Amino acid sequence: MDLTPLKNMTYGLYIVSSFNKGHYNGQIVDAVMQVSIEPIIIAVAVNKKNLTHDYIKESGYFSISILEEETPMEFIGRFGFRTGRDFDKFKGIKFEIGPGGCPVVIDHTLGYIVTEVIDHKDCGSHTVFFGSLINSKTIKYGKPLTYRYYLEVIKGKVHMHSPMAALEDAEVG
Amino acid sequence: MDLTPLKNMTYGLYIVSSFNKGHYNGQIVDAVMQVSIEPIIIAVAVNKKNLTHDYIKESGYFSISILEEETPMEFIGRFGFRTGRDFDKFKGIKFEIGPGGCPVVIDHTLGYIVTEVIDHKDCGSHTVFFGSLINSKTIKYGKPLTYRYYLEVIKGKVHMHSPMAALEDAEVG
Repeated sequence: MDLTPLKNMTYGLYIVSSFNKGHYNGQIVDAVMQVSIEPIIIAVAVNKKNLTHDYIKESGYFSISILEEETPMEFIGRFGFRTGRDFDKFKGIKFEIGPGGCPVVIDHTLGYIVTEVIDHKDCGSHTVFFGSLINSKTIKYGKPLTYRYYLEVIKGKVHMHSPMAALEDAEVG
Repeated sequence: MDLTPLKNMTYGLYIVSSFNKGHYNGQIVDAVMQVSIEPIIIAVAVNKKNLTHDYIKESGYFSISILEEETPMEFIGRFGFRTGRDFDKFKGIKFEIGPGGCPVVIDHTLGYIVTEVIDHKDCGSHTVFFGSLINSKTIKYGKPLTYRYYLEVIKGKVHMHSPMAALEDAEVG
């Protein structure tokens, strides 16, 4: 099957964060969207292999930080290419604690939302979490980072645990 | 609550199409994403008031046409601001019939995917349909139309039944 159309779908780049037993973690994610206007519900797809996945399941909360276009590659790599199992991704970066105790990354963030999980769906490699909006705040004005900008301008690598990564796999092997 | 961050989320613009008893219909949608890589699953949020919503529920299939950046406003309006209850949106436009009998809009389309619905979730104003990928095809090469490009360059109106529309409502009233 020709999977090119899936690559032409449009995504932003975000950090989804959560917590468990006093530990914070977050990761880069592209598959985020608002799925309802009344009530306001946000859906995010997270790979089951990732620590943030387990934290969201345990805590029942997640935050989404909307990254700015100028986000440096190093910062994206910190949240996108390393696991929080062996180091504290939140150490030395600016963050806030939102409602329910959920951490929110503030560095390189235009604005954030915090949600309480109301449901989740097992989709195979990923779980989709549905979060009801409980807080939302603007940090600064600017252009949001898109997945396309990241690939074409920043020349970023493909995050192997993102939905889009599968397509790269398919092309390579 | 400051809802500006929700507007800084990144979306594409697509036509989601489906069918029922020999009738075809489609509508503009922004909330579409791939939510799993194995198997490949696509999620789309559709307003319950819309005819396409009922067609997807009845038929169990939907297609997504990825619109090109050059898509004219008139074409977007045909699928975005009119209901298929009183006219045939597919009359006079180029389309194909995909697996399961699902129509696919070809005009102004970079590529399309066809899915079979495996689950759905009631989210209030919208239903999220989860579709398993059954076909995918490239029509032509070009840049995909984004919601941001539509608002800022085409100066398009906000579709009142889209998730994003709620934010405009919130600002106006």
